[in-house]
Formats: sequence, C-alpha cells, structure tokens
Amino acid sequence: MAKEVKVLGKWPSPFVMRARIALHLKSVDYEFIEESMQPKSELLLKSNPVHKKIPVLLHHEKPICESLIIVQYVDEAFSTGSSILPSNPYDRAIQRFWAAYLDDKWFPAFQGVSRAPNEEAKAKGLEQVREGLSLLEDAFDKCSNGKPFFGGDKIGYLDIAFGSYLGWVRVSEKMNNIELISKDKTPKLHAWAERFSANDAVKDYMPETEKLMGFAKMLMAKYQAAAST
Amino acid sequence: MAKEVKVLGKWPSPFVMRARIALHLKSVDYEFIEESMQPKSELLLKSNPVHKKIPVLLHHEKPICESLIIVQYVDEAFSTGSSILPSNPYDRAIQRFWAAYLDDKWFPAFQGVSRAPNEEAKAKGLEQVREGLSLLEDAFDKCSNGKPFFGGDKIGYLDIAFGSYLGWVRVSEKMNNIELISKDKTPKLHAWAERFSANDAVKDYMPETEKLMGFAKMLMAKYQAAAST
Repeated sequence: MAKEVKVLGKWPSPFVMRARIALHLKSVDYEFIEESMQPKSELLLKSNPVHKKIPVLLHHEKPICESLIIVQYVDEAFSTGSSILPSNPYDRAIQRFWAAYLDDKWFPAFQGVSRAPNEEAKAKGLEQVREGLSLLEDAFDKCSNGKPFFGGDKIGYLDIAFGSYLGWVRVSEKMNNIELISKDKTPKLHAWAERFSANDAVKDYMPETEKLMGFAKMLMAKYQAAAST
Repeated sequence: MAKEVKVLGKWPSPFVMRARIALHLKSVDYEFIEESMQPKSELLLKSNPVHKKIPVLLHHEKPICESLIIVQYVDEAFSTGSSILPSNPYDRAIQRFWAAYLDDKWFPAFQGVSRAPNEEAKAKGLEQVREGLSLLEDAFDKCSNGKPFFGGDKIGYLDIAFGSYLGWVRVSEKMNNIELISKDKTPKLHAWAERFSANDAVKDYMPETEKLMGFAKMLMAKYQAAAST
C-alpha cells in the first residue's frame, strides 16, 4: 500500500535532511523518493512549480515545499513524538529568528567561500562565516540554557535548521584546510555538533564527509564550467 | 505607566505595518516608537544587533525581530481577537509558503524595477513582477475559497504579508505610469486589495499614496546618488 507521507529529495541536500529528521522525531513512516534533478522529475515540477526545488513533502498527495515550512508542518500535523518547536511563543520566535538568519545570511556567506573568485574574496567570506558562528555560539548559550541542544533536552527546530548544514561545514573544512566550528573559538557549538551528529534521529541522514566531498567536487567543477562560459 | 508592548518602526515601512496590523487584529494596546534610522537609535541597535532593522517588537522589554516572525509571535502570544494563522496545518504551510515567496522573490523583483539601470532591465523586472502577481491571483483563489481574504472571512497571515506592500505597489504604478494589480489581469487580487485597504484593522496604517510617493522620491534620489559614487 502506498505510504501516506512521501519525501521527494536527494541525499546530499541539507534541506532534504531537515524534512527527514523532523519526520524521524515524530516517528512518521514515509517513502523516500530519490529525485534525479537532471532532468527534474515530473513529480517535482508538478509539486513545486514555483521554485522547482527539493525537498517536497507529500501528505496524502498534497505537496508542502520549503524545508523550514515542512519542519513546522510536520510538527503541527503529527502529534506523535515530542514537539519540535518550543511551546513558549518567545522561544519559538527566537528559534525562528536564528533559523531565518542561517538561511538568509549565514549559508549564502558560507557558499560564497567556495565560490569566491580570488583569495581576497575568500578571506572576506570566511570572516563573515566566522562572525556568524560567533553569533550562533552566543545564541546556543541563550537557547539551550545549559542543556545539550538549542531545543533544550531534545533536538528542536533550530538544531535541525543548523545541524543540517554540518555535513557541508565538514566538507568545507577539509577542502579548504580550515577550521570553522572549532574547539577553540566556538567550543559550545563544537560540542553541540558532535552531539547532534551522533543523535539517533540524525545519524542515518548525516552524509559521510568523504562521500559528500566527492559530490561537492563534482558540483564545483560544474559551477566553474558554468561560470567560465 | 509604560506599555508592556512597544513597536519600534517608521511609517513608510511595509514590514512595520505588518506588526501593527497583527497587534490591531489581536486588540493589543502598544506604544509606537518612531525610529529615526538616521542615525539608528541605540534602542534599535541594542534590540536588533544582527540586522539593525525595523520593526522590532518589544514585549516586556524582550525584543522580537523580523516582521513575519513578529506576526506569528503576536498570534501565538495573545489569545485576544481572532487567529491570524489558519488552524489547519496544511493551510498554515500554504500561507507560510506564499508569504516567504513574497519576501524572497516577489518583493526583490518589485524593488528591482525602480532600481533598473535601463529600460530593458526594467521591462524584464516588470515581467517577473507580473508573473508573480499571476501566481498570487491563483493562490488567492485556492486560499480564500470564495471568501473575501486569503485568510477566509477575515484578514490572516498572508493578507498581512502581501497587503503591507500595497502602498508601495500604488506608488510604483503612479511613478512608472503602469498597472500592476489590474482589474483586467488580476481581477481577484484587485478586488482583494480594495477590501484589504479599507479594512478597519488596516486603514489607519496604510500610507497615503501621495505622501509615500514623496518619501519614495527622496529614497530614490539617495539610491541614485549612492549608485553613482
């Protein structure tokens, strides 16, 4: 029998990972449909005609798009498992604020490092990324309140939003021979990242660094070929 | 006695308008603090150190930033008045999707029209804006279900997100001598825009087109001066 929940995605995508972790936390059984992206499947084009991007969550065939919207939907639509967003409205607002910061500011800066046209631009990009991490180290302090996760005792919304980027952070650290989330500069985030990656709800979806690096190299070659034409 | 809710903002900002409409819908009494922006006030820099942008909502002196996050916070923190977000998780996800589309795609394209360096770029920008409006016309059909607002019988989340841009849409229509939300091309949005602007929760915050146009001209002169240096 067809499952009532489906996720259309691809393993290296941090955004797809968010949907999968949320479903895992809510103990929702679902079918994972690997999206080829080249060309984009008819199901993807039909389900997300505006952005044509993964992930798409299908619930009773009704599509929900945009990873953070999916995470909130999963939290609201399934009462199984623990809550992903905090119950207190102020705490929810703070987690939403930092999740939006990650997607709108931090991740674009992070992506800019790999795509920098020269060393100067790269250094500037790295500075922005590190400034962001320092803000997030402070945010961790305030959100976690001495507990292991941004969400407190358990993985929550902001853990998912940030944690899904960790695979790519590790790839960037290796490829550029740098430290980003370091024991020195951001010790709390460093310990959090270890905890997050080892968590039962996460570990099956966290891509292996070597495998992701292979994918990243292929992606960069494509990007450079496109940029030089 | 100091009010427990304060909004730090400026009248021409569509984002500030969102916070004010949400508070009006929830019958929340608040103090409006006009932010000069030149220079930015200490209260703003302290309350929103990451983005340094308005609006900021202060609730018992605790700051909440980012307009759509503020609207959700107001909905969750105050049980007075009707709900701003729909109760059904799928409907919530759809409204969140279109609100994010408006802020991430449509409004930047709309802003690009006024800032276009030449007629060709302007025409291309206008095409994007109109394509977006056509998508939003369809979305209105699906969300409103034959009722007057995206939110159904009453103004909801997506009404606030989109409606806050209407003042600026009218300014652009006048300054560029064009029609954007037209009776012809997007009749449902056209009728909705009239209804929205006349609504009790909105009309006091909807800027007059002439006054906003004066502000826009000043802004454009600044932008052009900055671009030519």
